[in-house]
Amino acid sequence: MTGNQVQADNITMSGGGLYSLATVGAKHVIDLATPRVIAALESLRERKAEHWCFSDMGCADGGTSLDLWRHVIKHIRSTDNSDIQVVYADQANNDFNALVKILHGLTQFDSYLQASANVTVMESGASFYTPILPRASLDLGFSATAMHWLSKTPINLGSHIHMVGATGEEKSRFSSQAADDWQNILLQRVREMKPGSKLVLVNFCIDEQGRYLGNTGGVNMFDQFNSNWQQFVDDGVITVEEYNAMTLPQYYHTVEEFSAPLLHKRSPVYEAGLRLVDIETAVVHCPFAEDFRVHGDSARFADAYLPTIRSWNESVFGGALSSERSLQERREIIESYYNTYRQQVALSPKGHSMGYVHAYMTIEKVS
Amino acid sequence: MTGNQVQADNITMSGGGLYSLATVGAKHVIDLATPRVIAALESLRERKAEHWCFSDMGCADGGTSLDLWRHVIKHIRSTDNSDIQVVYADQANNDFNALVKILHGLTQFDSYLQASANVTVMESGASFYTPILPRASLDLGFSATAMHWLSKTPINLGSHIHMVGATGEEKSRFSSQAADDWQNILLQRVREMKPGSKLVLVNFCIDEQGRYLGNTGGVNMFDQFNSNWQQFVDDGVITVEEYNAMTLPQYYHTVEEFSAPLLHKRSPVYEAGLRLVDIETAVVHCPFAEDFRVHGDSARFADAYLPTIRSWNESVFGGALSSERSLQERREIIESYYNTYRQQVALSPKGHSMGYVHAYMTIEKVS
Repeated sequence: MTGNQVQADNITMSGGGLYSLATVGAKHVIDLATPRVIAALESLRERKAEHWCFSDMGCADGGTSLDLWRHVIKHIRSTDNSDIQVVYADQANNDFNALVKILHGLTQFDSYLQASANVTVMESGASFYTPILPRASLDLGFSATAMHWLSKTPINLGSHIHMVGATGEEKSRFSSQAADDWQNILLQRVREMKPGSKLVLVNFCIDEQGRYLGNTGGVNMFDQFNSNWQQFVDDGVITVEEYNAMTLPQYYHTVEEFSAPLLHKRSPVYEAGLRLVDIETAVVHCPFAEDFRVHGDSARFADAYLPTIRSWNESVFGGALSSERSLQERREIIESYYNTYRQQVALSPKGHSMGYVHAYMTIEKVS
Repeated sequence: MTGNQVQADNITMSGGGLYSLATVGAKHVIDLATPRVIAALESLRERKAEHWCFSDMGCADGGTSLDLWRHVIKHIRSTDNSDIQVVYADQANNDFNALVKILHGLTQFDSYLQASANVTVMESGASFYTPILPRASLDLGFSATAMHWLSKTPINLGSHIHMVGATGEEKSRFSSQAADDWQNILLQRVREMKPGSKLVLVNFCIDEQGRYLGNTGGVNMFDQFNSNWQQFVDDGVITVEEYNAMTLPQYYHTVEEFSAPLLHKRSPVYEAGLRLVDIETAVVHCPFAEDFRVHGDSARFADAYLPTIRSWNESVFGGALSSERSLQERREIIESYYNTYRQQVALSPKGHSMGYVHAYMTIEKVS
């Protein structure tokens, strides 16, 4: 196992239910997908199933999709009392204690489970790069804001922290890794899908206008992260090696890249029976920047905004620091790093936002 | 929700994988059940299943049954490459992070998952008093050393800490609760079983000779627990209310009690289609007392023996103490309580043992 793989394996979302509390924007992204999921469900109506089997891949603590599944169950129950099984999957170092407690109604989150008859939920520690379900058992698979995480970092970037700032050979290495990973994700799914079943996948993308997460007008969030991290090198806070090690193992596909294996008749994914039903992109505005437009309090904005950032990248920044530093020292550097960013936001709030840019797609397995 | 229910809901086995490390005896109990599980599996061979679906109910951290499922998978694979799904279920406050990490090979335990093709595992936070699986989806359900936990404490015992020491009306209240709970457990299962499927259940019992956990000759463990707890009242360490609140919400059925709903044609369980294939009792010796017979070191025995006790009853003793005491004070009382017992074992080791007395039964759902 290489150092890069160790790093990628140790990436975690915030635990204990904090992920969902911090990421109201991720919930808005899922809410926007609800009509698409219901439409996919409608197309499956004619099937006679023993029970409905759904998956929620890359679910984190499960809080952001509670309303989606509540809608799905309500929709089914209008005509159909079949049993429903929802399988929540995330990598094995996810916080499953938080997930189970949220689903079973032991937290402040409003779960659908207690009010639903003949609905069972299960959790799986299998990542979407591996089998999650038995062969031909899935009716509808869902995933939101998860599959941008690559299976490994193909190369540490020398001049940026994210592939959105990569160029040349470095960019190619990321594109190649991402194409392999996307194909693998789809091939793992097609085996577990029933004939005629659907996937609704909602993934970060670079849209037709070149927009992506945190780059929807105003300050480019990833460029800001990068220049702050570079400044830490210039100030002697971190080493060049630590700068390089901070490479997010993520890739934001374009619509063309997402579509390619589902459209090209010679691709293994197409040959396995997966077809693109449709794909579209959408921007979901940063809820914290939107709130700021109303309340106008820059410190309040900065305080609300930082946790959503930290929820998904703190473990990667932390992992980039040398293990020769004490844990305490590493913590102080990370606190200082986020504090720098917080101050930038608080001093000059206009233009800062983490707008979400996603591709929403529906995929079918041909019968 | 009554105070008793709160107490019962808060019972936990040791977390972080410590449960399996401390309870090697529980693993021996499961190993002894392996031929019975294989025989049940053989009887299902003729079925044509999309995939095999197994459950492991009351699994705790899953470590004690890894070898059982390894055997099951190996047995199936000798003739059959169908997909296999193992669903691990325990109540929602179980340590699912430990369970997932153990199953996915991220701990010192030797999981079968990484070496097995076409095997998926899932976890469920549904207790065995509720539905775990969709209707008619289970091929073989397994549970060991779990179903003695009642759904609630029917009454706080005034003169003992466990129903094995209860008499008269108090004993009746426990028997009645236990009969209702046993019926409920079986009715929840029958719905999720396929026609012709099996359950192999291994449960604490009072055997034909009146033996039960910790009462297989020598010191009666529960009587010792009780007299020590009573001594704490006499010494003014705890109150009478705290003595009474320490009532384990457990019931050890006799063979007749386990069998009754599966034999009586008017019982709802029988009417739902469950039949007793066979039942037998077995004693598994205390591994720590066995080790002591070899090494003869009484302090070493006491140190090895105490964790297995604490793994399953510490949360109940702790929960019996008044919440008006500080957490620190409660911790000190509990430490003092186990230290008392530890000293008794170390000073007079002979006769102390936690031998396991189980009923092993196979149950079938008629087609």
